[in-house]
Amino acid sequence: MKNADWSGFFADAKALNQDDYIILDYYIECTGDPQIAAAHFCAEQSTAQWHRMGSSEDLRPTFAAKVIALDVLTAKKSCFSYDLGIHLDGDVHACRVRIAHPHGNFGARLPNLLSAVCGEGTFFSPAIPVVKLLDIFFPASYLAEFEGPQFGIEGIRDLLQIYDRPIFFGVIKPNIGLPPEAFSTLGYQSWLGGLDVAKDDEMLADTDWCPLEKRAALLGIARRKAELETGCPKFYLANITDEVDRLVDLHDIAVAKGANALLINAMPVGLSAIRMLRRHARVPLIAHFPFIAPFSRLPNFGIHSRVFTKLQRLAGCDAIIMPGFGERMQMSDDEVCANVSACLAPMGEIKRSLPVPGGSDWAGTLQNVYDKVGTVDFGFVPGRGVFGHPLGPKGGAASIRQAWDAIVAGVSLADYAVDHVELSAAMDAFGRKTAVNATPTDDES
Amino acid sequence: MKNADWSGFFADAKALNQDDYIILDYYIECTGDPQIAAAHFCAEQSTAQWHRMGSSEDLRPTFAAKVIALDVLTAKKSCFSYDLGIHLDGDVHACRVRIAHPHGNFGARLPNLLSAVCGEGTFFSPAIPVVKLLDIFFPASYLAEFEGPQFGIEGIRDLLQIYDRPIFFGVIKPNIGLPPEAFSTLGYQSWLGGLDVAKDDEMLADTDWCPLEKRAALLGIARRKAELETGCPKFYLANITDEVDRLVDLHDIAVAKGANALLINAMPVGLSAIRMLRRHARVPLIAHFPFIAPFSRLPNFGIHSRVFTKLQRLAGCDAIIMPGFGERMQMSDDEVCANVSACLAPMGEIKRSLPVPGGSDWAGTLQNVYDKVGTVDFGFVPGRGVFGHPLGPKGGAASIRQAWDAIVAGVSLADYAVDHVELSAAMDAFGRKTAVNATPTDDES
Repeated sequence: MKNADWSGFFADAKALNQDDYIILDYYIECTGDPQIAAAHFCAEQSTAQWHRMGSSEDLRPTFAAKVIALDVLTAKKSCFSYDLGIHLDGDVHACRVRIAHPHGNFGARLPNLLSAVCGEGTFFSPAIPVVKLLDIFFPASYLAEFEGPQFGIEGIRDLLQIYDRPIFFGVIKPNIGLPPEAFSTLGYQSWLGGLDVAKDDEMLADTDWCPLEKRAALLGIARRKAELETGCPKFYLANITDEVDRLVDLHDIAVAKGANALLINAMPVGLSAIRMLRRHARVPLIAHFPFIAPFSRLPNFGIHSRVFTKLQRLAGCDAIIMPGFGERMQMSDDEVCANVSACLAPMGEIKRSLPVPGGSDWAGTLQNVYDKVGTVDFGFVPGRGVFGHPLGPKGGAASIRQAWDAIVAGVSLADYAVDHVELSAAMDAFGRKTAVNATPTDDES
Repeated sequence: MKNADWSGFFADAKALNQDDYIILDYYIECTGDPQIAAAHFCAEQSTAQWHRMGSSEDLRPTFAAKVIALDVLTAKKSCFSYDLGIHLDGDVHACRVRIAHPHGNFGARLPNLLSAVCGEGTFFSPAIPVVKLLDIFFPASYLAEFEGPQFGIEGIRDLLQIYDRPIFFGVIKPNIGLPPEAFSTLGYQSWLGGLDVAKDDEMLADTDWCPLEKRAALLGIARRKAELETGCPKFYLANITDEVDRLVDLHDIAVAKGANALLINAMPVGLSAIRMLRRHARVPLIAHFPFIAPFSRLPNFGIHSRVFTKLQRLAGCDAIIMPGFGERMQMSDDEVCANVSACLAPMGEIKRSLPVPGGSDWAGTLQNVYDKVGTVDFGFVPGRGVFGHPLGPKGGAASIRQAWDAIVAGVSLADYAVDHVELSAAMDAFGRKTAVNATPTDDES
């Protein structure tokens, strides 16, 4: 790019029609002049060649992504943050760049959005080997083209008739290998103990050893029985993650048989497939998080996880299961909170998604999650903390509810456990001393 | 996990029924005993809790992923390869671990495969914050459940009637912003100059300023005219990347109007959506590579790009556009060659996909690509090297064909350019001195 050309990829944000642009925050590490690098970065993600040869046309005013802010965070770093096995001449500069990207280039289409803002242009721009898409902001005009969650937090609360506390999920375990009969018995017990939502593991599929149709039928019967016995509505959250062209059929089968919420692994299936399913769905859609960590864990490379939380909400996920607090999930509290906020913060007319930060939770971690989330609008999702509980799933579920009762009463878990055998057993099994951060991982057998 | 338990996640490869297992190679960095870490790693990606509480059952023989080889590459590294902002006690060990994963856990379903082999279990295993899935190998029994490419290399060659040379693609530029009429004129000129395939940019969508239906119609007319004038079959490769539930309709519209090959951004749309489209497609499906680099660029973290290449082939992509050689694409030659090999190497009954390594190519980079690929079974895909050529797309396309003629004749480009004005102009514009690695990026205007 000639020096005289790069100015076409810069703009004064105030001079742009905000309705026409998505705003993108990137961290980049570049060599050479950061302004030239940032201009290339915009060119590569929009109109890389802005005129035909021999023509004086200029496609940039309408079609170019434009730098609206560029801050050099560290000039002349000694090297890139990561050794990528490549050599580029010149000093390395770490920058934060804010870009206004015209969404008319692709429209309200999630695959095309991804292709533009974190595709080839983003990751193959000259002199910028290290880049992380940190955040994305949509104008109301763009949001209005998406349906978003059908139920959202309020819809889930109405279905479960729970308004004043977190929603208690549990991952039925053993997650893989049980036949439907044994599996449904575990779900039934967990509902009796006080779980609101008994869920399939995200790896459990529609297999010959545990077919979804049979599983949904048996769990549906067990659910209705538990609802009668407890007087509380319950969810059986069936995993319908599968090939895209089976999702609608599996929705219909699972719901007809007795599932009343559906789990989908958002990224393995694809955000667009979620959006498709959302248009068809008659029950809440709950997203799980496999396949996000590999592009979000590095602090200075890839794509920040909150971008995907926002996109899952936009695609229509009523609840979003995400890596939670504590060392086990290898995510900073700030990042977990950013993902929670991406579910809860205003987003045009798009409903709020229920954030479900999870990972090796048990009764002893509930206070910590509640404190950090700062609202009752979240889901809590133990696995072995319920199903690996020494008294079984009913006792495990009861231990979670007792932990919440203790929090509401303002009583320490240790004190509350004196009169509550399930909570006491959980603390013995999963770590009385370290009730805030203990993980049941090492105590599963 | 108690010490006595981890042996259930190890196996002698020779004792396993090979038809039942996918083989996975991972690089991991762990703390603590590598054997315990590897056992956890298997548990997390399969049956994390292998028995019900109070039961002596053991689900592991059938359902556990199993370590079949574990090599400590570097014991007691001073720290993890990447600063992840987390602290784990103990020495860090870098290991290579080979795992046999029972595919009966999920079946021949791509989203479920991803969820198992690079999902939560892989990236949230205790004491293993750094992990890269390096490679994946499928038994014939598993491959047999996939259709793979419908046309493959041989089918593409039959359609184009080209058997003895690479396939010459070109990305019509300006990529974003032109109306269909101007866009089709550029494609027409490039075909006349000698391109086999004129393609939409991967960011070009079905927009109001360039609707796919109109574009396909005009390009279809232009294509047939070029075929008559040149006597050679041509492809108009239309990008139908869009929301999943529009793919089949867009296929039908594009093909009815005049596109005879279709571009899809594999990862933004989702591998499963490609597989769905494959079952419906009447023309070759060509995959593009946005949204892979954020998973694959770090040497020791994420997922190796060849895994995605194999999965795109499995999903049915007849050709796979991938980052190519040269510094611009920030990928080592070894990794590019691994991706080429993932297209060409035997894979059960699955047809070969045409590898199309690309990135800032022009006439001067063809020899290098050919040398490194080592066969004529590849596609070559310049953008500005054709459409930013000073003599326009016809001249740009001619320069590519002349470069190939020079290679076949064993004549240097410089010598061949003496009598070939298009090649000479390309060398003047894109770098006569550095014909092997020069990029047209800085000469586009």
